[in-house]
Amino acid sequence: MTVDLVIKHVKVYTEGGLLAAGIAVQAGKIVAIASDDCLPEGISSIDGQGRYLLPGGIDPHVHFRDPGKTERETFLTGTMAAAAGGVTTVCEHPISSPPPYSAELIRNRIKVAAEQAVVDFAFFGAAGADKLEHIPQVAQEGIVAFKTFFHEPPEGREEEFAGLTMANDAAIYAGFQAVAKTGKILAIHAENNDIIAARIKELRAAGKLKGRDHALSRPPVSEIESVGKILLLARECGTKVQLCHISTPQAAELVKQAKADGVKAYLETCPHYLFLTDDKLEELGPFAKCNPPLRSRELSDALWRYIDDGTVDMIGSDHGPFLPEEKEIGFRDIFAAPAGFPGIDLRLPLLLDAVHKGRLSLDRMVELISTAPAKLYGLYPQKGAIRIGSDADLVLVDLAADFIVDRRQSYSKSRDTGRVYDGWKLKGRPVMTLVRGRVVMEEGRVDEQAARWGRLVTPRNG
Amino acid sequence: MTVDLVIKHVKVYTEGGLLAAGIAVQAGKIVAIASDDCLPEGISSIDGQGRYLLPGGIDPHVHFRDPGKTERETFLTGTMAAAAGGVTTVCEHPISSPPPYSAELIRNRIKVAAEQAVVDFAFFGAAGADKLEHIPQVAQEGIVAFKTFFHEPPEGREEEFAGLTMANDAAIYAGFQAVAKTGKILAIHAENNDIIAARIKELRAAGKLKGRDHALSRPPVSEIESVGKILLLARECGTKVQLCHISTPQAAELVKQAKADGVKAYLETCPHYLFLTDDKLEELGPFAKCNPPLRSRELSDALWRYIDDGTVDMIGSDHGPFLPEEKEIGFRDIFAAPAGFPGIDLRLPLLLDAVHKGRLSLDRMVELISTAPAKLYGLYPQKGAIRIGSDADLVLVDLAADFIVDRRQSYSKSRDTGRVYDGWKLKGRPVMTLVRGRVVMEEGRVDEQAARWGRLVTPRNG
Amino acid sequence: MTVDLVIKHVKVYTEGGLLAAGIAVQAGKIVAIASDDCLPEGISSIDGQGRYLLPGGIDPHVHFRDPGKTERETFLTGTMAAAAGGVTTVCEHPISSPPPYSAELIRNRIKVAAEQAVVDFAFFGAAGADKLEHIPQVAQEGIVAFKTFFHEPPEGREEEFAGLTMANDAAIYAGFQAVAKTGKILAIHAENNDIIAARIKELRAAGKLKGRDHALSRPPVSEIESVGKILLLARECGTKVQLCHISTPQAAELVKQAKADGVKAYLETCPHYLFLTDDKLEELGPFAKCNPPLRSRELSDALWRYIDDGTVDMIGSDHGPFLPEEKEIGFRDIFAAPAGFPGIDLRLPLLLDAVHKGRLSLDRMVELISTAPAKLYGLYPQKGAIRIGSDADLVLVDLAADFIVDRRQSYSKSRDTGRVYDGWKLKGRPVMTLVRGRVVMEEGRVDEQAARWGRLVTPRNG
Amino acid sequence: MTVDLVIKHVKVYTEGGLLAAGIAVQAGKIVAIASDDCLPEGISSIDGQGRYLLPGGIDPHVHFRDPGKTERETFLTGTMAAAAGGVTTVCEHPISSPPPYSAELIRNRIKVAAEQAVVDFAFFGAAGADKLEHIPQVAQEGIVAFKTFFHEPPEGREEEFAGLTMANDAAIYAGFQAVAKTGKILAIHAENNDIIAARIKELRAAGKLKGRDHALSRPPVSEIESVGKILLLARECGTKVQLCHISTPQAAELVKQAKADGVKAYLETCPHYLFLTDDKLEELGPFAKCNPPLRSRELSDALWRYIDDGTVDMIGSDHGPFLPEEKEIGFRDIFAAPAGFPGIDLRLPLLLDAVHKGRLSLDRMVELISTAPAKLYGLYPQKGAIRIGSDADLVLVDLAADFIVDRRQSYSKSRDTGRVYDGWKLKGRPVMTLVRGRVVMEEGRVDEQAARWGRLVTPRNG
Ligand SMILES: [Zn+2]
Ligand SMILES: [Zn+2]
Ligand SMILES: [Zn+2]
Ligand SMILES: [Zn+2]
Ligand SMILES: [Zn+2]
Ligand SMILES: [Zn+2]
Ligand SMILES: [Zn+2]
Ligand SMILES: [Zn+2]
Repeated sequence: MTVDLVIKHVKVYTEGGLLAAGIAVQAGKIVAIASDDCLPEGISSIDGQGRYLLPGGIDPHVHFRDPGKTERETFLTGTMAAAAGGVTTVCEHPISSPPPYSAELIRNRIKVAAEQAVVDFAFFGAAGADKLEHIPQVAQEGIVAFKTFFHEPPEGREEEFAGLTMANDAAIYAGFQAVAKTGKILAIHAENNDIIAARIKELRAAGKLKGRDHALSRPPVSEIESVGKILLLARECGTKVQLCHISTPQAAELVKQAKADGVKAYLETCPHYLFLTDDKLEELGPFAKCNPPLRSRELSDALWRYIDDGTVDMIGSDHGPFLPEEKEIGFRDIFAAPAGFPGIDLRLPLLLDAVHKGRLSLDRMVELISTAPAKLYGLYPQKGAIRIGSDADLVLVDLAADFIVDRRQSYSKSRDTGRVYDGWKLKGRPVMTLVRGRVVMEEGRVDEQAARWGRLVTPRNG
Repeated sequence: MTVDLVIKHVKVYTEGGLLAAGIAVQAGKIVAIASDDCLPEGISSIDGQGRYLLPGGIDPHVHFRDPGKTERETFLTGTMAAAAGGVTTVCEHPISSPPPYSAELIRNRIKVAAEQAVVDFAFFGAAGADKLEHIPQVAQEGIVAFKTFFHEPPEGREEEFAGLTMANDAAIYAGFQAVAKTGKILAIHAENNDIIAARIKELRAAGKLKGRDHALSRPPVSEIESVGKILLLARECGTKVQLCHISTPQAAELVKQAKADGVKAYLETCPHYLFLTDDKLEELGPFAKCNPPLRSRELSDALWRYIDDGTVDMIGSDHGPFLPEEKEIGFRDIFAAPAGFPGIDLRLPLLLDAVHKGRLSLDRMVELISTAPAKLYGLYPQKGAIRIGSDADLVLVDLAADFIVDRRQSYSKSRDTGRVYDGWKLKGRPVMTLVRGRVVMEEGRVDEQAARWGRLVTPRNG
Repeated sequence: MTVDLVIKHVKVYTEGGLLAAGIAVQAGKIVAIASDDCLPEGISSIDGQGRYLLPGGIDPHVHFRDPGKTERETFLTGTMAAAAGGVTTVCEHPISSPPPYSAELIRNRIKVAAEQAVVDFAFFGAAGADKLEHIPQVAQEGIVAFKTFFHEPPEGREEEFAGLTMANDAAIYAGFQAVAKTGKILAIHAENNDIIAARIKELRAAGKLKGRDHALSRPPVSEIESVGKILLLARECGTKVQLCHISTPQAAELVKQAKADGVKAYLETCPHYLFLTDDKLEELGPFAKCNPPLRSRELSDALWRYIDDGTVDMIGSDHGPFLPEEKEIGFRDIFAAPAGFPGIDLRLPLLLDAVHKGRLSLDRMVELISTAPAKLYGLYPQKGAIRIGSDADLVLVDLAADFIVDRRQSYSKSRDTGRVYDGWKLKGRPVMTLVRGRVVMEEGRVDEQAARWGRLVTPRNG
Repeated sequence: MTVDLVIKHVKVYTEGGLLAAGIAVQAGKIVAIASDDCLPEGISSIDGQGRYLLPGGIDPHVHFRDPGKTERETFLTGTMAAAAGGVTTVCEHPISSPPPYSAELIRNRIKVAAEQAVVDFAFFGAAGADKLEHIPQVAQEGIVAFKTFFHEPPEGREEEFAGLTMANDAAIYAGFQAVAKTGKILAIHAENNDIIAARIKELRAAGKLKGRDHALSRPPVSEIESVGKILLLARECGTKVQLCHISTPQAAELVKQAKADGVKAYLETCPHYLFLTDDKLEELGPFAKCNPPLRSRELSDALWRYIDDGTVDMIGSDHGPFLPEEKEIGFRDIFAAPAGFPGIDLRLPLLLDAVHKGRLSLDRMVELISTAPAKLYGLYPQKGAIRIGSDADLVLVDLAADFIVDRRQSYSKSRDTGRVYDGWKLKGRPVMTLVRGRVVMEEGRVDEQAARWGRLVTPRNG
């Protein structure tokens, strides 16, 4: 039989390890893994030149803000950046206006995405205490998980946060129970807003408005307390929880213990908590502002231990696009600047460099950025693995390529706010990305014609 | 030498165990423990008839509400009930109007108490986030610990709760830090107000206003969540914490684990969580209403395990006097009735009966109601032990005496609301109470002339 | 390209899970896994009829006793039984005369095996305290592990046990250190011989010589004590240890704890400790005698927990062939009969039946009987997996086939002593076995022409 | 009433803490603890000059070797040394010829002791696998515990070790079961004899016969392995075990874990494992030889952690008297010299010095050398406490006294082999020792007239 595509002469990553072999793709699916000379004929053929062929990345945490803030990013620019970074499925979190707290809103968002996306996409539903009645229905709309925040909608932004927050413990308790019934994971931005608000007030009163003051305004305890509460309520309510963007080893330790006690808790961290420290806040001010904030070298180093011991389940980019002018406000008042920066295209290169330096294994890396999120969100084995029958979502990586991070080359609309890694010299990069068998990126260039190629991905059981 | 008093022919409880011996008292202090024939001569002499002589009880948790609500209880009636129940030191918690959040307020309360008390007394200071600046000074006023609540002052009762609450996590965090600096224990009413308020609203909306609905309105999670947060912040801030009136084994388990991790956490429970269940709420409605509520038989039984394994540090009465008419409102609407009931005079008899039934040892009982609170509050060895040099605060108990609880015989002004144990047949009761060598109770009758005999007790280091 | 063999229409077991696919085999290796229509052409072709294609079994514990006792079993009959039972690699343990304690002896044994074997084979080296100087050299001879016993050679059988035992703690300590230096696993028959010898003496003296007395003579403590010592010395000496044929949950618990503490300890159990109880000793006397003995239902049930929680690493058959007349001696005196019975051909059917009954998953089964021993002994990925480049050692199983165990159909020379499962009705059996691409068993019939097809397998790094 | 003796102006150690008080003694018992002016009149009176009055020491591990080897020590000289060191009860271990394995032998030893002893004494019974039938009867003879060794009687010394050893695992298992039935503690010399014998052989063969070679001949593993086995069998058999003279933190850790699992295991160590290191073996050769050997500084320091955390139950002297000429043999061949040295009179001064240096508290010291052994052996509260009704076994200590250890001043017959601490400058020493109210030592001088004052002490329940 002749197939659509064969990829030869690669080291194929499978769950049993790496194979010197090739693969065949037909109708977007992997149909053969075989030694090169046993592959079927392909209409097209790619010579991998001995490079590594990995399952495409799944980014469990991105914010494209489309619709709503398309001047910052669109589904097109965001997914082009994804493709550039070897990401073949993005999971969009529900900050947008309004948040996707109803079936209708979810469907609208899907429509917007489908008209632009280069890579596949999935959605988080919004779970707000004010819209509890929507939760069962939203759970049926193909979302991979729910997301919530533990604070009141900021004044004047009520619409933007409608159906997205659980503002007090009663709301949280009710919300956890409601999500538990759906069997879905509930992802939470785990910071204690009361403590932070009081800190900011103190710092403002003291005239402390510089970059590093941002870190002081959100001390480790604000994350630790929040994680402690989430784990306790997850246990009481039987809710599966994703602790988003964890930045402290103390919080990771709490998650580790809760897991050992049978709580269904999943820990996500981000590259910036592993590779950066709060020195960046001094250097770059608002351009290094994210929530939770960058931590000290000591905490950052200690967080790696939870990569090593298996406590961390996944690494998300928390890709957060903003305009430079929005960020620059923070030079006068760090608290006035928005938190977050782009990063979807650097997750894989940063981790490949860490693999090169021996900080983690290639296996563990693939688990953290592809296989584990696929399994947690019910997308496996359609996504997250190179197996017969899986989608041919693939990334070919050159482990030996040296390159220098240059924000200008990013496909993100917010490329100019992507400064924290700018100028870093890294070893290892993706050289080709395929989504369901179609090459969408080659040698760093994303095929704009692939817009609308991306499709909605839904969990197996939902 | 001739001493003021000798007590002969008793089994003296010492920390090493029971001794067949007697004691001598001079100027209110124990000056000798000796075999009867080696005791010095006494101006007075008591023949103990072979009964057990224990250290006088210390009640770590009472509410006399004087000044403020003297129609419910006064320091005179409250301490007379204490004396009747073998309690020689009471620790008054700061619900009163206004709460003792300043040095001046503390001094006023001491004055009121000193003019009436039959037994010795100590005070908790109020620790409120709105009066943080007072905390260092209040700590110097001879208080044994601080007390706080985690909710906003109820509407219209702002004055009553001034300086007594930490209404949100920022306030709690600031308050924990402030108390930590004083080295004092911070006692907390550990219930999550948000969860409870929402539950009550739901129950009210559903027309559920009966006794048992009170228990439903404050499910175990409301205590567990609160204890979880307290322990986490105690660890972060280095605050010593007293978990008041713990009613669930799940919360006790959290405390046990935190202790093992080095958190300075002290667990108090009350007789009603050990001897009563939520069936009483059905039987007695508002007269069985207390916060946290009575629990199921299963939870109550499981709580005993933490008595056995040493996790529980002390048993307080949480003596809460109210008028019958205040309580009776609750027959129509359980949520409208005040929570609490008297019990200072029954703590010892209930526990003696449990000793008789083999549920705990006499040693463990003395530790829970006398030695441990004395040590935790810095009163030891002045209080809490029969040792040379200690105050002659003593209670002679008859382990074999059968009696029937009859609320009419209580000295509490609120005796008519003391119904939960009414009619119970118990074995074991105090037959004589001495405070600093003076007999204040004999055969159930308290000497009213002993009013003003009670004195303020202050911690060794404070 | 045309390949030697394709197998189509099967559910292929891979480490990522089951695939509806087929495989291609060339020169004895797997060269493709692909959907049926993407497979290359094959000179031969097998239609799997939708059945499960698993990696061939690896039996980590067999005794063929050839050379030495060929009347009981030969390498030919033993490996034919293996092929019948879906086993494609057998690991021969060193009881034979003399044991393989030197390079020369190992080579002789390899030669004997190579002239007969139908399936692949590997050897354990003998590690005896009296031949410590041979250990480094034997480690270089391609063995998969060492084996030892903790007792003196039985009187009169010195030659048979030469170089095979560590008879006292000094010998054990020295032996563990010597094996640790080779990096090889040391497998140990974990029973305390002193305790057992004393028990047998007592039982004999009391005239207790029946089947169940065998179990009494080797109480759980004799295994637990031995395992305790092994684990402690493994930790001290850094030796990797295989706890052979563990029969008690208490010993498994010790192994679990040691693993958690970082000891390199591997637990093997056998089907008979999972599926049989000491009632069989009463029923069948010497025909149910094995060492350690069959245990009570309670222990057997509890042992399953360590299958479930991952503590058990592998299941070996401990295939022990004897002649009926040797066994029958035991009807008069159970202690006089040899211990052990054949079983290499029933390991897989018994476990398939357990999979059918829901006692373990198919995945866990494959791990226990194939992947895990391959990995532990350094044979992976040549053996133990269906991957591109691995040996085409395969077993096709029919999960729905009902059959009745009939010892007469066994290929083992000792078939007449295989009585413990005789007559059992099982569901699930192997229907085809391939060794390096050659079909050696089909529908229960082993191809005798395949003698000499079996080859020595050696670890990757040895 | 007039009593025999009053001791005034002291700090009395009671279980609740230290009291500024005095005590009264009548007929050998404590009859009063009282402030000085409330004490009864005494026929004699002692002014303690403000010093500390502690419960007399209990030495749980001494070897006086009388009868048998009276040239080394007699019960007279041994107990005079005890009195000098503040020890009021000695527990004699059964190395003597023959060991006290029968009721008759026990009685003979009691008779010998009673004719000489200055302080009270208790006996360990011998528990040998060859005399199991005697164990129940010996348990009735007032012994405090059993003792055993895990090796064959040395060749030619069979009589000396009759009834004292459990030479293999069967013997140990039988012996543990036999002792378990008596409810008595079984004390064990925890060293693996096999490992040691092999090591000595190797060292001898290599011509290594110096002091430090003794330590090499008994590596930590020889203790650790033995303790591991003991704890495992203690659990299996329900035997209470005393791990004698533990010298390694690894063994202590095993005991700690076993205790947490409910094993009745009691850990004894000796001053020399806390205050000395193997450097002494280099310095003093055979005079620093003891079994187990002195360890490295690292192990010794780590052992203190188990003093701190409560794992160590008691500190015994393992007083081992020998003649200098016996010891001197060891200068040529360290293995030829006997193991042990005297020390009963230095246990208290060494520990008082450690209290002075802040390494442990006075409370913990009294627990380790008096209260804990009294409780474990069933002698409490007759011994081990200053309480009304207890024996007036007392030691007055001067915490401020500086003195230099001078072996010539020892009362031990073996004083010339007491070299390990010779010349040390210590702070803190006993200045008066009383046994049942009689002063037997004052200012370092023991009253020889007190010979025969010592009496047998037997456990409460035995
Ligand atoms: Zn977030
Ligand atoms: Zn985010
Ligand atoms: Zn309260
Ligand atoms: Zn209260
Ligand atoms: Zn075996
Ligand atoms: Zn075997
Ligand atoms: Zn010893
Ligand atoms: Zn000894």
